[in-house]
Amino acid sequence: MAAKGPPAGHDFTESTVSTKVAYDGGLLELRRDEVRLPDGKVAWREYVVHPGAVVILAFVDEETILLERQYRYPKRRHFIELPAGKLEKDEPPLATAKRELVEECGFEAREWWRIAVLDPCIGYSTEVIELYGARGLTEVGKDPDEGEHLESFPVKIADALEWVREGAITDTKTTLGLLWWSQWGRFP
Amino acid sequence: MAAKGPPAGHDFTESTVSTKVAYDGGLLELRRDEVRLPDGKVAWREYVVHPGAVVILAFVDEETILLERQYRYPKRRHFIELPAGKLEKDEPPLATAKRELVEECGFEAREWWRIAVLDPCIGYSTEVIELYGARGLTEVGKDPDEGEHLESFPVKIADALEWVREGAITDTKTTLGLLWWSQWGRFP
Repeated sequence: MAAKGPPAGHDFTESTVSTKVAYDGGLLELRRDEVRLPDGKVAWREYVVHPGAVVILAFVDEETILLERQYRYPKRRHFIELPAGKLEKDEPPLATAKRELVEECGFEAREWWRIAVLDPCIGYSTEVIELYGARGLTEVGKDPDEGEHLESFPVKIADALEWVREGAITDTKTTLGLLWWSQWGRFP
Repeated sequence: MAAKGPPAGHDFTESTVSTKVAYDGGLLELRRDEVRLPDGKVAWREYVVHPGAVVILAFVDEETILLERQYRYPKRRHFIELPAGKLEKDEPPLATAKRELVEECGFEAREWWRIAVLDPCIGYSTEVIELYGARGLTEVGKDPDEGEHLESFPVKIADALEWVREGAITDTKTTLGLLWWSQWGRFP
Protein backbone atom coordinates (compact mmCIF):
# COMPACT_ATOMS: atom_id res chain seq x y z
CA MET A 1 0.00 0.00 0.00
CA ALA A 2 1.29 3.47 -0.83
CA ALA A 3 2.27 5.77 2.03
CA LYS A 4 -0.03 8.68 2.80
CA GLY A 5 1.19 11.67 0.78
CA PRO A 6 2.86 14.77 2.26
CA PRO A 7 0.61 17.10 4.28
CA ALA A 8 -1.14 19.89 2.33
CA GLY A 9 -0.31 22.46 5.01
CA HIS A 10 -0.50 26.25 4.72
CA ASP A 11 -0.47 28.30 1.55
CA PHE A 12 2.89 30.10 1.42
CA THR A 13 2.51 31.21 -2.21
CA GLU A 14 4.57 34.24 -3.20
CA SER A 15 2.83 36.22 -5.95
CA THR A 16 4.68 38.17 -8.62
CA VAL A 17 4.48 41.97 -8.33
CA SER A 18 6.96 42.70 -11.10
CA THR A 19 9.49 40.74 -13.14
CA LYS A 20 12.46 41.71 -15.28
CA VAL A 21 15.49 40.20 -16.95
CA ALA A 22 18.33 41.31 -14.68
CA TYR A 23 21.09 39.79 -16.79
CA ASP A 24 21.22 37.94 -20.09
CA GLY A 25 24.72 36.86 -20.99
CA GLY A 26 23.82 34.46 -23.77
CA LEU A 27 24.70 31.47 -21.60
CA LEU A 28 22.67 32.27 -18.48
CA GLU A 29 19.54 34.37 -18.08
CA LEU A 30 18.86 35.82 -14.67
CA ARG A 31 15.53 37.30 -13.59
CA ARG A 32 14.84 39.60 -10.65
CA ASP A 33 11.24 39.62 -9.45
CA GLU A 34 9.45 41.62 -6.84
CA VAL A 35 7.13 39.27 -4.92
CA ARG A 36 4.39 39.59 -2.33
CA LEU A 37 4.98 37.25 0.63
CA PRO A 38 2.17 35.42 2.47
CA ASP A 39 2.29 38.08 5.22
CA GLY A 40 1.71 40.85 2.64
CA LYS A 41 5.27 42.17 2.70
CA VAL A 42 7.28 42.65 -0.49
CA ALA A 43 10.63 40.97 -1.16
CA TRP A 44 13.00 40.24 -4.05
CA ARG A 45 13.75 36.93 -5.71
CA GLU A 46 16.62 36.42 -8.15
CA TYR A 47 16.91 33.21 -10.15
CA VAL A 48 18.38 31.58 -13.23
CA VAL A 49 15.90 30.80 -16.00
CA HIS A 50 16.94 27.37 -17.26
CA PRO A 51 15.56 25.42 -20.26
CA GLY A 52 15.67 22.09 -18.39
CA ALA A 53 17.99 19.12 -18.77
CA VAL A 54 18.21 15.36 -18.98
CA VAL A 55 20.44 12.77 -17.34
CA ILE A 56 20.82 9.22 -18.61
CA LEU A 57 21.41 5.77 -17.13
CA ALA A 58 22.70 4.12 -20.34
CA PHE A 59 23.00 0.37 -19.77
CA VAL A 60 25.80 -1.49 -21.55
CA ASP A 61 24.47 -4.60 -19.82
CA GLU A 62 22.20 -5.06 -16.80
CA GLU A 63 25.01 -4.27 -14.35
CA THR A 64 27.06 -1.72 -16.33
CA ILE A 65 26.38 1.89 -17.30
CA LEU A 66 28.22 4.69 -19.13
CA LEU A 67 29.89 7.44 -17.15
CA GLU A 68 31.71 10.56 -18.32
CA ARG A 69 34.64 12.54 -17.06
CA GLN A 70 34.86 16.24 -17.80
CA TYR A 71 36.11 19.54 -16.41
CA ARG A 72 33.54 21.79 -14.73
CA TYR A 73 34.86 25.31 -14.72
CA PRO A 74 32.63 26.77 -11.97
CA LYS A 75 34.07 24.16 -9.58
CA ARG A 76 37.61 24.26 -11.09
CA ARG A 77 37.96 20.49 -11.26
CA HIS A 78 37.08 17.34 -13.18
CA PHE A 79 33.87 15.44 -12.37
CA ILE A 80 32.60 11.93 -12.99
CA GLU A 81 29.01 12.20 -14.26
CA LEU A 82 26.22 10.36 -15.95
CA PRO A 83 25.68 11.50 -19.56
CA ALA A 84 23.53 14.63 -19.43
CA GLY A 85 22.68 17.80 -21.25
CA LYS A 86 20.49 20.85 -21.60
CA LEU A 87 17.35 21.05 -23.71
CA GLU A 88 17.62 23.16 -26.82
CA LYS A 89 14.78 25.54 -27.60
CA ASP A 90 11.47 23.64 -28.04
CA GLU A 91 13.27 20.28 -27.80
CA PRO A 92 11.32 17.50 -26.00
CA PRO A 93 13.42 15.97 -23.17
CA LEU A 94 13.56 12.51 -24.75
CA ALA A 95 14.95 14.01 -27.96
CA THR A 96 17.60 15.78 -25.88
CA ALA A 97 18.52 12.51 -24.20
CA LYS A 98 18.88 10.71 -27.55
CA ARG A 99 20.94 13.57 -28.97
CA GLU A 100 23.25 13.82 -25.97
CA LEU A 101 23.90 10.08 -25.81
CA VAL A 102 25.18 10.20 -29.40
CA GLU A 103 27.09 13.48 -29.08
CA GLU A 104 28.79 12.68 -25.79
CA CYS A 105 29.12 8.89 -25.77
CA GLY A 106 28.63 7.82 -29.40
CA PHE A 107 25.69 5.46 -28.76
CA GLU A 108 22.12 5.03 -29.92
CA ALA A 109 19.71 3.00 -27.77
CA ARG A 110 16.95 0.61 -28.83
CA GLU A 111 14.80 1.30 -25.77
CA TRP A 112 14.24 4.40 -23.63
CA TRP A 113 12.19 4.87 -20.46
CA ARG A 114 11.56 7.69 -18.02
CA ILE A 115 12.67 7.01 -14.44
CA ALA A 116 12.28 10.17 -12.35
CA VAL A 117 12.22 13.97 -12.23
CA LEU A 118 14.74 15.99 -10.23
CA ASP A 119 14.73 19.63 -9.17
CA PRO A 120 18.42 20.28 -8.51
CA CYS A 121 18.50 23.91 -7.49
CA ILE A 122 15.10 25.13 -6.28
CA GLY A 123 16.45 28.11 -4.36
CA TYR A 124 17.73 30.01 -7.38
CA SER A 125 17.01 28.17 -10.65
CA THR A 126 14.00 26.97 -12.62
CA GLU A 127 16.00 23.94 -13.78
CA VAL A 128 14.26 20.56 -13.88
CA ILE A 129 16.08 17.36 -14.89
CA GLU A 130 14.41 14.27 -16.34
CA LEU A 131 16.18 11.00 -15.58
CA TYR A 132 15.98 8.44 -18.41
CA GLY A 133 17.03 4.84 -18.77
CA ALA A 134 18.36 3.55 -22.10
CA ARG A 135 19.37 0.08 -23.21
CA GLY A 136 20.10 -1.90 -26.34
CA LEU A 137 23.10 0.32 -27.18
CA THR A 138 24.67 0.49 -30.64
CA GLU A 139 27.90 2.38 -31.22
CA VAL A 140 27.51 5.08 -33.88
CA GLY A 141 30.46 7.38 -33.12
CA LYS A 142 30.67 10.55 -31.00
CA ASP A 143 29.76 14.00 -32.21
CA PRO A 144 30.84 16.40 -29.45
CA ASP A 145 29.68 20.02 -29.36
CA GLU A 146 32.26 22.62 -30.35
CA GLY A 147 34.38 23.28 -27.26
CA GLU A 148 33.13 20.22 -25.38
CA HIS A 149 35.94 18.04 -24.07
CA LEU A 150 35.02 14.84 -22.27
CA GLU A 151 35.64 11.10 -22.20
CA SER A 152 33.09 8.35 -21.56
CA PHE A 153 33.59 4.81 -20.29
CA PRO A 154 31.57 1.83 -19.00
CA VAL A 155 31.51 1.14 -15.24
CA LYS A 156 29.81 -1.51 -13.12
CA ILE A 157 26.97 0.14 -11.19
CA ALA A 158 28.31 -1.46 -8.00
CA ASP A 159 31.69 0.27 -8.54
CA ALA A 160 30.04 3.62 -9.34
CA LEU A 161 28.02 3.37 -6.12
CA GLU A 162 31.24 2.71 -4.21
CA TRP A 163 32.68 5.90 -5.77
CA VAL A 164 29.62 7.78 -4.49
CA ARG A 165 30.09 6.38 -0.99
CA GLU A 166 33.78 7.31 -1.02
CA GLY A 167 33.09 10.84 -2.28
CA ALA A 168 34.76 10.35 -5.68
CA ILE A 169 31.38 11.10 -7.29
CA THR A 170 29.60 14.15 -5.80
CA ASP A 171 27.67 15.53 -8.77
CA THR A 172 24.13 15.34 -7.45
CA LYS A 173 22.26 14.31 -10.63
CA THR A 174 24.75 11.43 -10.92
CA THR A 175 24.62 10.29 -7.29
CA LEU A 176 20.85 10.51 -7.37
CA GLY A 177 20.54 8.51 -10.60
CA LEU A 178 22.77 5.77 -9.20
CA LEU A 179 21.10 5.64 -5.79
CA TRP A 180 17.61 5.73 -7.31
CA TRP A 181 18.48 2.78 -9.52
CA SER A 182 20.03 0.91 -6.61
CA GLN A 183 16.90 1.44 -4.52
CA TRP A 184 14.06 1.03 -7.03
CA GLY A 185 15.52 0.32 -10.47
CA ARG A 186 13.63 -2.10 -12.68
CA PHE A 187 13.93 -2.66 -16.40
CA PRO A 188 10.70 -2.06 -18.32
CA MET B 1 37.71 -4.31 -0.38
CA ALA B 2 37.17 -0.85 -1.82
CA ALA B 3 36.48 -0.55 -5.55
CA LYS B 4 39.24 0.81 -7.71
CA GLY B 5 38.75 4.60 -7.99
CA PRO B 6 37.62 6.42 -11.14
CA PRO B 7 40.15 6.58 -14.00
CA ALA B 8 42.52 9.58 -14.01
CA GLY B 9 42.01 10.16 -17.76
CA HIS B 10 42.98 13.21 -19.79
CA ASP B 11 43.55 16.72 -18.52
CA PHE B 12 40.60 18.85 -19.71
CA THR B 13 41.43 21.81 -17.47
CA GLU B 14 40.06 25.17 -18.64
CA SER B 15 42.32 28.01 -17.52
CA THR B 16 41.08 31.49 -16.68
CA VAL B 17 41.98 34.22 -19.20
CA SER B 18 39.88 36.95 -17.58
CA THR B 19 37.17 37.12 -14.92
CA LYS B 20 34.58 39.74 -14.02
CA VAL B 21 31.43 40.16 -11.97
CA ALA B 22 28.70 40.20 -14.63
CA TYR B 23 25.85 40.82 -12.20
CA ASP B 24 25.57 41.39 -8.47
CA GLY B 25 21.99 41.79 -7.34
CA GLY B 26 22.59 41.40 -3.62
CA LEU B 27 21.02 37.94 -3.61
CA LEU B 28 22.97 36.31 -6.45
CA GLU B 29 26.42 37.10 -7.81
CA LEU B 30 27.12 36.04 -11.37
CA ARG B 31 30.61 35.90 -12.91
CA ARG B 32 31.52 35.79 -16.59
CA ASP B 33 34.99 34.39 -17.31
CA GLU B 34 36.95 34.03 -20.49
CA VAL B 35 38.65 30.60 -20.44
CA ARG B 36 41.22 28.77 -22.53
CA LEU B 37 40.01 25.29 -23.51
CA PRO B 38 42.28 22.21 -23.69
CA ASP B 39 42.49 22.65 -27.48
CA GLY B 40 43.76 26.22 -27.07
CA LYS B 41 40.51 27.90 -28.15
CA VAL B 42 38.86 30.58 -26.06
CA ALA B 43 35.30 30.33 -24.69
CA TRP B 44 33.02 31.96 -22.11
CA ARG B 45 31.77 30.54 -18.83
CA GLU B 46 29.00 32.15 -16.76
CA TYR B 47 28.24 30.91 -13.26
CA VAL B 48 26.69 31.79 -9.93
CA VAL B 49 29.15 32.37 -7.08
CA HIS B 50 27.56 30.66 -4.09
CA PRO B 51 28.72 30.69 -0.43
CA GLY B 52 27.84 27.00 0.07
CA ALA B 53 25.02 25.39 2.00
CA VAL B 54 24.09 22.63 4.43
CA VAL B 55 21.29 20.07 4.53
CA ILE B 56 20.33 18.14 7.65
CA LEU B 57 18.98 14.70 8.51
CA ALA B 58 17.62 15.60 11.97
CA PHE B 59 16.56 12.42 13.75
CA VAL B 60 13.57 12.58 16.11
CA ASP B 61 14.17 8.87 16.67
CA GLU B 62 16.10 6.23 14.70
CA GLU B 63 13.34 5.95 12.08
CA THR B 64 11.95 9.51 12.01
CA ILE B 65 13.38 12.77 10.65
CA LEU B 66 12.24 16.38 10.31
CA LEU B 67 11.00 17.65 6.96
CA GLU B 68 9.90 21.13 5.90
CA ARG B 69 7.35 22.47 3.50
CA GLN B 70 7.89 25.82 1.83
CA TYR B 71 7.21 27.78 -1.32
CA ARG B 72 10.06 28.04 -3.84
CA TYR B 73 9.44 31.01 -6.05
CA PRO B 74 11.74 30.06 -8.98
CA LYS B 75 9.66 26.88 -9.40
CA ARG B 76 6.31 28.54 -8.51
CA ARG B 77 5.24 25.79 -6.12
CA HIS B 78 5.63 24.33 -2.63
CA PHE B 79 8.35 21.75 -1.92
CA ILE B 80 8.95 19.16 0.77
CA GLU B 81 12.60 19.44 1.84
CA LEU B 82 15.09 18.48 4.49
CA PRO B 83 16.07 21.43 6.71
CA ALA B 84 18.77 23.37 4.88
CA GLY B 85 20.34 26.77 4.49
CA LYS B 86 23.10 28.91 3.05
CA LEU B 87 26.35 29.72 4.81
CA GLU B 88 26.70 33.28 6.01
CA LYS B 89 30.00 35.05 5.38
CA ASP B 90 32.89 33.19 7.11
CA GLU B 91 30.47 30.79 8.81
CA PRO B 92 31.71 27.18 9.18
CA PRO B 93 29.17 24.70 7.71
CA LEU B 94 28.48 22.99 11.04
CA ALA B 95 27.61 26.36 12.60
CA THR B 96 25.23 27.00 9.70
CA ALA B 97 23.59 23.61 10.28
CA LYS B 98 23.11 24.31 14.00
CA ARG B 99 21.73 27.79 13.27
CA GLU B 100 19.32 26.60 10.58
CA LEU B 101 17.94 23.74 12.68
CA VAL B 102 16.96 26.25 15.36
CA GLU B 103 15.70 28.95 13.01
CA GLU B 104 13.65 26.70 10.76
CA CYS B 105 12.60 23.81 13.01
CA GLY B 106 13.12 25.05 16.56
CA PHE B 107 15.49 22.28 17.67
CA GLU B 108 18.99 21.95 19.08
CA ALA B 109 20.81 18.62 18.76
CA ARG B 110 23.13 16.87 21.21
CA GLU B 111 25.16 15.14 18.50
CA TRP B 112 26.16 16.15 14.97
CA TRP B 113 28.05 14.22 12.32
CA ARG B 114 29.05 14.81 8.71
CA ILE B 115 27.60 12.36 6.19
CA ALA B 116 28.45 13.48 2.65
CA VAL B 117 29.24 16.34 0.28
CA LEU B 118 27.02 17.19 -2.70
CA ASP B 119 27.68 19.38 -5.74
CA PRO B 120 24.15 20.23 -6.90
CA CYS B 121 24.72 22.43 -9.89
CA ILE B 122 28.20 21.98 -11.36
CA GLY B 123 27.33 23.41 -14.77
CA TYR B 124 26.64 26.95 -13.59
CA SER B 125 27.19 27.34 -9.84
CA THR B 126 30.04 27.01 -7.34
CA GLU B 127 27.57 25.74 -4.73
CA VAL B 128 28.63 22.84 -2.52
CA ILE B 129 26.29 21.32 0.10
CA GLU B 130 27.42 19.47 3.22
CA LEU B 131 25.00 16.82 4.47
CA TYR B 132 24.91 16.49 8.28
CA GLY B 133 23.20 14.12 10.65
CA ALA B 134 21.85 15.37 13.98
CA ARG B 135 20.29 13.54 16.91
CA GLY B 136 19.39 14.03 20.55
CA LEU B 137 16.94 16.84 19.67
CA THR B 138 15.66 19.36 22.23
CA GLU B 139 12.90 21.81 21.34
CA VAL B 140 13.98 25.42 21.88
CA GLY B 141 11.49 27.33 19.66
CA LYS B 142 11.76 28.55 16.07
CA ASP B 143 13.40 31.78 15.02
CA PRO B 144 12.63 32.18 11.31
CA ASP B 145 14.45 34.69 9.14
CA GLU B 146 12.50 37.79 8.17
CA GLY B 147 10.33 36.86 5.18
CA GLU B 148 10.87 33.12 5.61
CA HIS B 149 7.60 31.17 5.69
CA LEU B 150 7.75 27.44 6.24
CA GLU B 151 6.42 24.64 8.40
CA SER B 152 8.33 21.61 9.71
CA PHE B 153 7.08 18.21 10.80
CA PRO B 154 8.39 14.74 11.71
CA VAL B 155 8.08 11.93 9.12
CA LYS B 156 9.10 8.27 9.14
CA ILE B 157 12.06 7.84 6.79
CA ALA B 158 10.23 4.95 5.11
CA ASP B 159 7.30 7.27 4.29
CA ALA B 160 9.61 10.03 3.02
CA LEU B 161 11.33 7.50 0.73
CA GLU B 162 7.93 6.48 -0.59
CA TRP B 163 7.22 10.17 -1.36
CA VAL B 164 10.51 10.26 -3.31
CA ARG B 165 9.57 7.17 -5.30
CA GLU B 166 6.12 8.63 -6.08
CA GLY B 167 7.57 11.99 -7.14
CA ALA B 168 6.05 13.97 -4.26
CA ILE B 169 9.62 14.86 -3.20
CA THR B 170 11.84 15.99 -6.11
CA ASP B 171 14.20 18.46 -4.44
CA THR B 172 17.54 16.85 -5.13
CA LYS B 173 19.37 17.59 -1.86
CA THR B 174 16.42 16.01 -0.06
CA THR B 175 16.07 12.91 -2.25
CA LEU B 176 19.81 12.41 -2.08
CA GLY B 177 19.95 12.74 1.71
CA LEU B 178 17.13 10.21 2.10
CA LEU B 179 18.53 7.72 -0.43
CA TRP B 180 22.05 8.03 0.97
CA TRP B 181 20.78 7.24 4.44
CA SER B 182 18.71 4.35 3.15
CA GLN B 183 21.75 2.91 1.36
CA TRP B 184 24.60 3.52 3.80
CA GLY B 185 23.26 5.34 6.87
CA ARG B 186 24.81 4.42 10.22
CA PHE B 187 24.61 6.29 13.48
CA PRO B 188 28.02 7.27 14.87
